Amino acid sequence: MKDFQNNIVVLRLSHRPSRDKRVSTHLFLAARALGAYEAFYTGTKDPSLEESIKKINEEWGGTFKITYFSNWKNAVKNWEGKIVHLTMYGIPFQDIIEEVRTSIEPIMIIVGGAKVPGEIYRISDWNISVTNQPHSEISALALFLNEFYQGKYLKHEFQNAKINIRPSKNGKQIQKIKQVFKH
Amino acid sequence: MKDFQNNIVVLRLSHRPSRDKRVSTHLFLAARALGAYEAFYTGTKDPSLEESIKKINEEWGGTFKITYFSNWKNAVKNWEGKIVHLTMYGIPFQDIIEEVRTSIEPIMIIVGGAKVPGEIYRISDWNISVTNQPHSEISALALFLNEFYQGKYLKHEFQNAKINIRPSKNGKQIQKIKQVFKH
Repeated sequence: MKDFQNNIVVLRLSHRPSRDKRVSTHLFLAARALGAYEAFYTGTKDPSLEESIKKINEEWGGTFKITYFSNWKNAVKNWEGKIVHLTMYGIPFQDIIEEVRTSIEPIMIIVGGAKVPGEIYRISDWNISVTNQPHSEISALALFLNEFYQGKYLKHEFQNAKINIRPSKNGKQIQKIKQVFKH
Repeated sequence: MKDFQNNIVVLRLSHRPSRDKRVSTHLFLAARALGAYEAFYTGTKDPSLEESIKKINEEWGGTFKITYFSNWKNAVKNWEGKIVHLTMYGIPFQDIIEEVRTSIEPIMIIVGGAKVPGEIYRISDWNISVTNQPHSEISALALFLNEFYQGKYLKHEFQNAKINIRPSKNGKQIQKIKQVFKH
């Protein structure tokens, strides 16, 4: 069975710190929670965005990381695998997800920013829509990943977490996880 | 069969125009695209947020609307139906969605803002998590709605749309829809 954890990278195009900070943060957190291994972004480098994702990992575990590229071509040129471009103009994901899922290569998922260059449509192996309505790259990515992994990450336990949540019917239960060191 | 279109209302708490404009816009668009009938919000009234949702409806169709309440208690007090609160501390949605789906009453889905009052946990019929990891109210709502409707809205056609998209493998195909007036 293939190692799902190494299978998915998300590339977020054209991040603008002033406008997109919260949307990009939500996007990367959704990517992490739902099974992406790492993420790349282009646009303007944003140290506070990188720091906020790093802090989440330190507390909640896992090895998800984000890396900045000055240009999407640099992020793509050494990529050995397939490319999915999420766009409202693409083929409905429910019609194509099985084909994507059974690909044996790792997958880069490109999600757009302000203006998506026409080349992105041409270099992608699949242009895929999550509904053909306008909504959000966050919801589109989440639905795509959850369907790709067939719900596998909904109860995923991240390694090296300092805290986690005990699900509760009517309150908040956060558990601190004791680190056990062996001598 | 029950009328799904009248079944779901989303309540977004504590909107702050300066910080949350794009996140709230994405949230409401995801709500619309994935089958919510309407949305309420509290926090600070934001005419430009309301205008952007109205414009989407004018172009893309449907009757989704958003309404401001100065206080969440005003939004809830006349609600006749069940209440779901989406929170990372709640019961995993995949364990409870069948129970929610088979409720014969309409459902209000509350999604948090900066600080969620403890009362929200107590007045809700279900406190539900979409993973127990931090990610986004947008991804959480999208996954919940899509699962609730079992994918029904992924190909929904909105009434009275002026434009729609013809899904395409490698480009953009937008169709203008001719309005036919009968005399």
